[in-house]
Amino acid sequence: MVKNLKDSERKRVVVVGGGFGGLAAVKKLWRGNLKVTLIDKNNYHLFQPLLYQVATGELSPANIASPLRGILRRQKNCEVLMGEVLDVDLEKQSVKLDDGQNIPYDFLIVATGAKHSYFGKDIWRPLAPGLKTIEDATEIRKHILYAFEQAEKTDDPLARQSWLTFVIVGGGPTGVELAGALSEIANHTLKYDFRRINPVDAKILLVEASENPLDMYPEELTKKTREVLAELKVTLVNNSKVTDILPDKVQITSKDGKLHDIETKTVIWAAGVAATPLARLIGDKVGASVDRAGRITIEPNLTIAGHDNVMLIGDMTSFPHQGERILPGLAPVAMQQGQYAAKRINQAAVGKSFDEPFRYFDKGSMAVIGRFEAIAQVGNWKFSGVIAWLMWLFIHILMIAQFRNRLLVSMQWAWTFFSRDRSARLITGEPPQ
Amino acid sequence: MVKNLKDSERKRVVVVGGGFGGLAAVKKLWRGNLKVTLIDKNNYHLFQPLLYQVATGELSPANIASPLRGILRRQKNCEVLMGEVLDVDLEKQSVKLDDGQNIPYDFLIVATGAKHSYFGKDIWRPLAPGLKTIEDATEIRKHILYAFEQAEKTDDPLARQSWLTFVIVGGGPTGVELAGALSEIANHTLKYDFRRINPVDAKILLVEASENPLDMYPEELTKKTREVLAELKVTLVNNSKVTDILPDKVQITSKDGKLHDIETKTVIWAAGVAATPLARLIGDKVGASVDRAGRITIEPNLTIAGHDNVMLIGDMTSFPHQGERILPGLAPVAMQQGQYAAKRINQAAVGKSFDEPFRYFDKGSMAVIGRFEAIAQVGNWKFSGVIAWLMWLFIHILMIAQFRNRLLVSMQWAWTFFSRDRSARLITGEPPQ
Repeated sequence: MVKNLKDSERKRVVVVGGGFGGLAAVKKLWRGNLKVTLIDKNNYHLFQPLLYQVATGELSPANIASPLRGILRRQKNCEVLMGEVLDVDLEKQSVKLDDGQNIPYDFLIVATGAKHSYFGKDIWRPLAPGLKTIEDATEIRKHILYAFEQAEKTDDPLARQSWLTFVIVGGGPTGVELAGALSEIANHTLKYDFRRINPVDAKILLVEASENPLDMYPEELTKKTREVLAELKVTLVNNSKVTDILPDKVQITSKDGKLHDIETKTVIWAAGVAATPLARLIGDKVGASVDRAGRITIEPNLTIAGHDNVMLIGDMTSFPHQGERILPGLAPVAMQQGQYAAKRINQAAVGKSFDEPFRYFDKGSMAVIGRFEAIAQVGNWKFSGVIAWLMWLFIHILMIAQFRNRLLVSMQWAWTFFSRDRSARLITGEPPQ
Repeated sequence: MVKNLKDSERKRVVVVGGGFGGLAAVKKLWRGNLKVTLIDKNNYHLFQPLLYQVATGELSPANIASPLRGILRRQKNCEVLMGEVLDVDLEKQSVKLDDGQNIPYDFLIVATGAKHSYFGKDIWRPLAPGLKTIEDATEIRKHILYAFEQAEKTDDPLARQSWLTFVIVGGGPTGVELAGALSEIANHTLKYDFRRINPVDAKILLVEASENPLDMYPEELTKKTREVLAELKVTLVNNSKVTDILPDKVQITSKDGKLHDIETKTVIWAAGVAATPLARLIGDKVGASVDRAGRITIEPNLTIAGHDNVMLIGDMTSFPHQGERILPGLAPVAMQQGQYAAKRINQAAVGKSFDEPFRYFDKGSMAVIGRFEAIAQVGNWKFSGVIAWLMWLFIHILMIAQFRNRLLVSMQWAWTFFSRDRSARLITGEPPQ
């Protein structure tokens, strides 16, 4: 039962960020003696694992973005504010919004995640869009579709080849997903759509610094990934780094120092991520260590040193699990940390303490490559091909259901699957530079 | 059977604009001895009658925009080029694209439609977005949703009231549709979503220069419209004009000259349209009359004086039907004109002439106001309420089916209808000024 307490009798919990971690926390903070304020700069929760499908025209933004107010409509102890948190005052216990407002807290959870990082080369940003937001996804979609349009329009054979060359930087899950989807677009979706060019002529290069794409998986699965990418006509450029990006070409440097210039109009950045600036800002205030990717090291109970009521969770943090490996930036990690943080606050709100170190329960991980093709690892079990792909499909339909849109997404997947069409193939906004 | 002709033996037809008129023409230009080039500045056909549903978060852009290449995939005599036509050389018979290319034609159909017009007050454009494109729709959606967010965020009661005041300029079909949908959003969709404000407090003003909204309909139906708008808590400000728009307020002048200042942060422009500039450009070349809305007067066979192989159709034209009333800018008019233009070219391509004046077959017209509420006129028959609304629904599901997405649209409508929710409630892009 929610008791009728005056505002002054309730503990104020501020949660910054409505991603997987923040939202998981808020949903567990249902106690009537808590007054929860969720602050996010967007008005929606984004189901990031499917963002690559927006970037490749399979889903619409609204299919993977659900309004936060809608999700939390029935949670009466929670209010949502749209805004950006610019600063945290750990002494006065308040966060400062972009409009100058200060929101006081008794407990604070910060979960603003990560954004992509160009390793100091911010000049590359407009030339090689990354994939972290809805706007990024529609931008990449525009770049890809516009390239095919321009290839059809030009009479110059070299310009045409350049428009039909796609370079994806980074062979992690996002890079591999994008490469696989691009192959599907070139080889199937657009197959009969053009009269002057043949979309099958598109060249898709996946540039990866290490030996293998999806390097975090066991060799058996990375080998399978390489085979599938080859079947999909994706050229893996491994042991290589992108060392320069210009409007008409990229420079790729291989391990042995050889330089290659690749003429291309479309470069997609899937290489690096860095924590959002709040991580460093808070780290500097409390003297916590902040790693190269801007992630703050947190205590075993997810707090920061000296502030028992402030927890940081998810992609913005570096958490040495049981003193050992740093947990990866994955949705399940953020969600479990969010639930842990909520439990700590729920206990504190009734005068109990809860400081058992956070433990991550690893249910496994998976990455999709293409139609019928995925890899998955669950404990020591390894899966690939159709089985892994069906696991991926099943789990993602289940997961997205928590944020609605399940039926629409399933239908669009069924449509894409059977027709190999992609219904959201729109070029919107200003033409690319 | 499509004959195997060399390119040089085929007549080149260029169609500019892939809206209702241009696309209807292209679809009928299937003869093998025609080589058809469809040029559009977007890569999709837009189902404009449902654009207001994107602006109000009910549908996603991709639900009402279908890639032109997909629609025309099987029509092998037709190619699609994405580009803007900047000029037409009527002597050399070619059109000039934005990238400098000239595309030669034997027959030309121009159907670039209309855009909204601020009656010379272009300074109002950023303050009062209109509704003609996908970008316009997501811009209006952003303005509406952002206003509720800001109202929730502020502590200042007058600022709050200003954020919750929505002014729609123009009581034509678009203005009435937007007003009705906004009422649904304020009174139902967002009802339980906020903690500090009550969305029901939103004020929706519909400013109309004449006595009645939907003034083109008979009095019986405009009276009904006024009743429904009142039930939906939309304030009709009739016999009034918007005479100034500033970032924080609009000035409304009533018929008797009284000035009113309304504080508001959200103004939507649904007042005037003007033909796209190609109408005037071509009109000036051939000395055809061009009206105040920039529409070119065309011949009874849709050609322009002195150029039997050039036809202009749809919203960019002023066509005195059987020498009498000017046809309205409606999809059925454009589509029938497109089909007529195609028939003329099909006949000419086999050496026949076809110059029977174009005749519009008026199947009736309809406008939707809200849930269960629409008006319709078919000949002398008049319908309103649930019957007209069901007619509207039935016809729009049929019509959109021609451009795919029928199932997805129907499902989202069913969802919206039963839940009164709107799933595409996203604020995307930069925050409004």
